[in-house]
Amino acid sequence: MTASPRTGDAFGEVLRAALAEHRGTAPAPSIGARTPIPVLEIVERDDGFVRGGPAAWYLAGPDEWWPCEQKALERMEGRVLDVGAGAGRVTLALQERGADVTALDPSPGAVEVARELGVRTQVRATTAQHAGSGERYDTLVLFGNNLGLLGPRDHAPGFLAELAALARPGARIVAQGTDPHHTDDPLHLAYQERNRERGELPGLLRQRVRHRDVAGEYMRYLMCSAEELAELAHGTGWDLVDVDEQDPPLLVATLAFRG
Amino acid sequence: MTASPRTGDAFGEVLRAALAEHRGTAPAPSIGARTPIPVLEIVERDDGFVRGGPAAWYLAGPDEWWPCEQKALERMEGRVLDVGAGAGRVTLALQERGADVTALDPSPGAVEVARELGVRTQVRATTAQHAGSGERYDTLVLFGNNLGLLGPRDHAPGFLAELAALARPGARIVAQGTDPHHTDDPLHLAYQERNRERGELPGLLRQRVRHRDVAGEYMRYLMCSAEELAELAHGTGWDLVDVDEQDPPLLVATLAFRG
Repeated sequence: MTASPRTGDAFGEVLRAALAEHRGTAPAPSIGARTPIPVLEIVERDDGFVRGGPAAWYLAGPDEWWPCEQKALERMEGRVLDVGAGAGRVTLALQERGADVTALDPSPGAVEVARELGVRTQVRATTAQHAGSGERYDTLVLFGNNLGLLGPRDHAPGFLAELAALARPGARIVAQGTDPHHTDDPLHLAYQERNRERGELPGLLRQRVRHRDVAGEYMRYLMCSAEELAELAHGTGWDLVDVDEQDPPLLVATLAFRG
Repeated sequence: MTASPRTGDAFGEVLRAALAEHRGTAPAPSIGARTPIPVLEIVERDDGFVRGGPAAWYLAGPDEWWPCEQKALERMEGRVLDVGAGAGRVTLALQERGADVTALDPSPGAVEVARELGVRTQVRATTAQHAGSGERYDTLVLFGNNLGLLGPRDHAPGFLAELAALARPGARIVAQGTDPHHTDDPLHLAYQERNRERGELPGLLRQRVRHRDVAGEYMRYLMCSAEELAELAHGTGWDLVDVDEQDPPLLVATLAFRG
């Protein structure tokens, strides 16, 4: 008899565990680990493909970031909204520099951990929810692969409209994503081909976080190239004005609001 | 639409990936990982609980073992069978000492990786299959939690009979397991309680390895205390003659064959 994990805030639970690890209050090691087992974020794609990696990077300071991320930090100006802020690594780095920054995340666990780590201004909501708040920002940050929140082809314009509703005149999106066309992994290529057959962009992912007995909802993330992004942005009021591809497959895209 | 992973030699695939990592031919790092993401063994229990940890320990030499494992190595005498040898870490350590040792594992991937790492004598089979071979050994090693191969209460006597069929007069089992009674994790305690309700020993696990798109078959492992082990061994011809509990929750049990 096999049971399913319960549905819940798995991502927030990962961050809570990562915080405990960071503070040295994580569980004791076990077999195969005279050194403690790192807290992992385990992600399950909808085709059954699983992968995982240490969750500690969610708490990493700018010194440990990729160069393209470090450079992008310099372009986050004015009033900033950190979209999908997670544990708040970008918000904290901006706070440190004296910026006016708000951390936005729908995960209760993420909001709690970010607060514990010192994030001062935060909103627990999705972008769609926050778009109705009347708040406006100069920079909308999508870091930690959150360019992927664009989602499927038919979701991207609505998401960009939500960001437009949060944008002051002249606002910019600074978004880090992943170009899916760098892979030569046959499993990823087959997944991409199935996306194409359904009329989707190849880099669309449907996946969920699993942590202990909890699984998050399946979320759709889009990995896209600069060209695909420019096409998605066309006609939305957002123009792709800069792409940094110094750390492939990562990319950092800057979009300017002309709406 | 959600697909299931395909069933296959997930454990062997983990070891293949760990070998590639060991040789420096692992895939490149990605987001969240300026340092490469370690190869992980991800294990899914039948209640949906997932956990994982770096797989590199399967290739670790005695210097990196727990003290109780290092000490047990001294007790592996005569002709040795390394039961569930995995990547062959125990076999390799014994070969190094000039011992006559055979690595037994049913996983094609494990057998391949162990051979690549230098294991000289190996058999790809389960204990049940090898028990019919007529081969006999002085020491039967169950390391890497392989005391768990005892499995459910009604499986243990048959498994110990297979080991008896592989035993020379005066043979010993040197087995490393985990005592489940050290945990205070509510999820593990609830799982143990469900085992008790079904008349099983509390530390029984039904779980499978998942790696990329592959899931292994669900396997039943028993975590048991020294007392529970003594009870299971009663009347099988195997006597529990020594238990090393210096590194809890690990234990190393020695059983002598009087059959």
